[in-house]
Amino acid sequence: MSGGERIALLRGELKRQDWDGFLVPRTDEYQGEYVPASAERLQWLTGFGGSAGMAIVLEPTAAIFVDGRYTLQVRDQVDTSIFTPRHITEEPASVWLKEQLEPGAKIAFDPWLHTPAQVSRMRKAVEAAGGQLVAADSNPIDAVWSDRPAPPTTRAKAHQLEYAGEASQDKRAVIAAKLQARGIDAAFLSSPDSIAWLLNVRGGDVPHVPLVLSFALLHAGGEVDWFVDPLKLPNDDSLGLDGRVSISSPDALASALDGLSEKRILIDEDSAPEWVRARLLAAGAKLVLGADPCLLPKARKNETEVSGARAAHRRDGLALTRFLCWLDGQVEAGATLTELALVERLLSFRKEMPLFRDLSFDTIAGSGSNGAIVHYRVDEESNRTLQKGELFLLDSGGQYLDGTTDVTRTIAIGEPDEEMRRAFTLVLKGHIAVARTRFPKGTTGSQLDSLARYPLWLEGMDFDHGTGHGVGSYLSVHEGPQRISKVPNAVALEPGMIVSNEPGYYKTGAYGIRIENLVTVIEDSSESPDGRILRAFETLTLAPLDRRLVIAEMLSHDERDWLNSYHASVREAHKDALQDKECDWLMRVTAPL
Amino acid sequence: MSGGERIALLRGELKRQDWDGFLVPRTDEYQGEYVPASAERLQWLTGFGGSAGMAIVLEPTAAIFVDGRYTLQVRDQVDTSIFTPRHITEEPASVWLKEQLEPGAKIAFDPWLHTPAQVSRMRKAVEAAGGQLVAADSNPIDAVWSDRPAPPTTRAKAHQLEYAGEASQDKRAVIAAKLQARGIDAAFLSSPDSIAWLLNVRGGDVPHVPLVLSFALLHAGGEVDWFVDPLKLPNDDSLGLDGRVSISSPDALASALDGLSEKRILIDEDSAPEWVRARLLAAGAKLVLGADPCLLPKARKNETEVSGARAAHRRDGLALTRFLCWLDGQVEAGATLTELALVERLLSFRKEMPLFRDLSFDTIAGSGSNGAIVHYRVDEESNRTLQKGELFLLDSGGQYLDGTTDVTRTIAIGEPDEEMRRAFTLVLKGHIAVARTRFPKGTTGSQLDSLARYPLWLEGMDFDHGTGHGVGSYLSVHEGPQRISKVPNAVALEPGMIVSNEPGYYKTGAYGIRIENLVTVIEDSSESPDGRILRAFETLTLAPLDRRLVIAEMLSHDERDWLNSYHASVREAHKDALQDKECDWLMRVTAPL
Repeated sequence: MSGGERIALLRGELKRQDWDGFLVPRTDEYQGEYVPASAERLQWLTGFGGSAGMAIVLEPTAAIFVDGRYTLQVRDQVDTSIFTPRHITEEPASVWLKEQLEPGAKIAFDPWLHTPAQVSRMRKAVEAAGGQLVAADSNPIDAVWSDRPAPPTTRAKAHQLEYAGEASQDKRAVIAAKLQARGIDAAFLSSPDSIAWLLNVRGGDVPHVPLVLSFALLHAGGEVDWFVDPLKLPNDDSLGLDGRVSISSPDALASALDGLSEKRILIDEDSAPEWVRARLLAAGAKLVLGADPCLLPKARKNETEVSGARAAHRRDGLALTRFLCWLDGQVEAGATLTELALVERLLSFRKEMPLFRDLSFDTIAGSGSNGAIVHYRVDEESNRTLQKGELFLLDSGGQYLDGTTDVTRTIAIGEPDEEMRRAFTLVLKGHIAVARTRFPKGTTGSQLDSLARYPLWLEGMDFDHGTGHGVGSYLSVHEGPQRISKVPNAVALEPGMIVSNEPGYYKTGAYGIRIENLVTVIEDSSESPDGRILRAFETLTLAPLDRRLVIAEMLSHDERDWLNSYHASVREAHKDALQDKECDWLMRVTAPL
Repeated sequence: MSGGERIALLRGELKRQDWDGFLVPRTDEYQGEYVPASAERLQWLTGFGGSAGMAIVLEPTAAIFVDGRYTLQVRDQVDTSIFTPRHITEEPASVWLKEQLEPGAKIAFDPWLHTPAQVSRMRKAVEAAGGQLVAADSNPIDAVWSDRPAPPTTRAKAHQLEYAGEASQDKRAVIAAKLQARGIDAAFLSSPDSIAWLLNVRGGDVPHVPLVLSFALLHAGGEVDWFVDPLKLPNDDSLGLDGRVSISSPDALASALDGLSEKRILIDEDSAPEWVRARLLAAGAKLVLGADPCLLPKARKNETEVSGARAAHRRDGLALTRFLCWLDGQVEAGATLTELALVERLLSFRKEMPLFRDLSFDTIAGSGSNGAIVHYRVDEESNRTLQKGELFLLDSGGQYLDGTTDVTRTIAIGEPDEEMRRAFTLVLKGHIAVARTRFPKGTTGSQLDSLARYPLWLEGMDFDHGTGHGVGSYLSVHEGPQRISKVPNAVALEPGMIVSNEPGYYKTGAYGIRIENLVTVIEDSSESPDGRILRAFETLTLAPLDRRLVIAEMLSHDERDWLNSYHASVREAHKDALQDKECDWLMRVTAPL
């Protein structure tokens, strides 16, 4: 079916319902980065395959709103004679709606697919344009999407205590006590990450993140009502859930919410479905708006999880180190290497590692000018053959039972030029500034962001993404609430949190540079002259940085020390696990500068 | 009259009004840092003379809430058997009210002295404690304060175009056009800084800031209603106001607001009096909550103001340089020097400078352990004699017709020890990192704050104040909306803005170090490899830094270059204006490191 046919079907459905328009977001009811095939409504309708975006379909016209990552891709994938592509912040929906809406127009939305915060922003825009926003009882796309895949029903598995480090009962008791202290009767959990963490379960409903798509209610007494498709549950008691977790089908959620009249219910307006908020309100519940109570405890990894992360990074770093050694050999031998082939090869090294389950995201493998596309994903069409004198940017990660990894290396293919080496060294200086900082308790990631940019700024350069994101423990490679970003963020960096440290530099049409290690926040016990409680980072990632790209004279004494000592720890971690040839290579590429 | 007698009088008045309590903030109706003697109600009632704080008087008890700067001072100045001193954030009013309030208690406040934002926070606290917050028709303190000074009636003067750089008519036209574009009929201006800037007038109603305390309405057509005591106006037309500025007595404000029925009125809920908000609402006006529209244009100094700032800083730096030379000579000669005497002496050097009108704030002159008290003000009791081997922290500034200055120097008295030199050098490294940074357009002060802390952080040290505040042009030495602070601030640093760059380090009981220059944001025209629009700082302050406190080996090549080049510009600025002896001294203390 063509895009034209699909939108015609949808418009027929809108007409039947007496609606003048409909919002089609990329998200599903869980607001995650990945959605199952059954929820790829935006892609079905428009062909757009990016990870974020929204279409608005009106009777005579339609538009698709995407962010800066996808302004090129959207024109490749979408029939722009049907959907006008627009930049979501520079040409926002509010402006387009003002131009397009007839007075009194009724714009419908699926209240499962939008958060209360999103709905309230969208309502403002629609009303300012003279229209009204109405919640649909059912999604009109689902009514016309005849070959829609079935929702996933992958079996959930227990996340064993040896990896989780804390029993689900104990996690529930701690959070329930906090709810009680706040006078809250129950928290509605809409984030599958939170449910996976709280119940110590993992699933496979979406690519690259071991989630069981589901909802839950955590009561202040510590009981959990888990609303999950029974097909996702094993037939035995291997999930290890105790009697205080009641399992119901997702269909039972509505009546469960209806029973919460007069109860004080915590709901996160940035992640819960609007449908749930409206239902709770209609049921007479008292809403307490606030952050998902699992977010912070999930972000502060316990000792078992931090040890697991160290072990996972050792194995992941070994796989990457082997790959880098192999790649150097191939380049030296003059082999023909394509981005796609390298992605496959790297995966095969990772697959050899114990506890490896999946990649943590689609590998970014950008050679030459492709490296300058920050969120590049290689496909048959974009696939390039690596050329001498180019840079190769490789951003990848693995899901291991004991931890999630994410690492970027930028590799010189043949002889790099001075400009590339200079830019790489500036990025490295920023990376080192973050890696070796200490900071007082209470410091946020927002405060650290500019440390990564300062060496670039001095040369009039910068990069257009955050310096670091939170990372889960055998969970999402992007998790909050902490991050290192210029966007204000009030969350202090606390021991056990894992974040990426990934400054970069991108020259459009030429090359991309990014240096990414994961770090974990640790207590710093060295003495503070003015009596402060201090934090520092421990770098988890263990793979060599390309010394051929470093201009040693641009590094300070302390920066050189950091690099040499980092490389010593990479050697120490891998030397016994490598073959002789690989080990010789590692000694050479990590020799002190 | 004793504190006991005064509070008894107040309680009598509360009883007469049938109120169970009353809020006594330090602020007046203009929410500024300085208030005239007639508005020092908190001091009259409690004896507390700090620049921020609030008392709450109930029938049986009373408390005074102050921030960390004043926790010692409040115990010195206030009878703690009458007022329980409490830390305003650690022991907040909300908690105290919960302990003290009888159910149904009526707590009154003077709606002129609180902003809408403050009232809404306080209402929450009072209601959570079971009481109710009621607006008083008149202030009960004024009813019992029999010898209350008359409000100030200092004559306003024109701020000439040669200093202001832009005619009032032009400023009004630009802002009025913006109001019009937003569909706003008028903006209520409650900040005397904004009114002084908009009308190009200056006054003398409070110490150290040349303000005309008054209110104004700026209409979208560009007309201004200025509500100002006629006694403050010159008898001639020397203020240079055109016919579109109508002058009314402050008594006329109420009926002017009553005439705004159905009009869309912009009001800043962080600075306007609650009284005005309530009156507008009662009059049927439509309130638009938003920032004072003069804030940003006032902060972005025009070319004339920036030139004026350069000139004012040259003169101010000359006065300070002469003082520092004189001080060195005195120390060498073994003279007895007290903090108070030094404050006087510095003032006498400033008074010799053309266009000098006033200090921009009370000089902070802290020797030895007094230097560690961040907001120290010397008085007869605290006055210390400088001792060899100590540091002397001197933070001062002047109001000149062409600009406002603020500068801190830390001076070694005799031989400093290694620890002091080390700490000074770390603070200097932070100061230099800010001074020499470049940054992309759109960067905020929040993003730059950690650059000043990083060298200290690496040694486990920090300072507990912001890195920089905005500074006015012959106006307040503390002005927004921009600042350099870890507190999130969304205001981009734009050309013409002036901020301080003042990292420090404080060792309680021992010494304080602070290095403060003012800087102005400039366009940076040097090439950006990735095509960015860049900004940088130009340092305005011109006075030597104490090289005896610098450990040269701790500075990088670039840092040493910055210091030497800064000192070269200090020499260049002052060498022709100094006496030979002073000039020799300056050459010596600014010689390249």
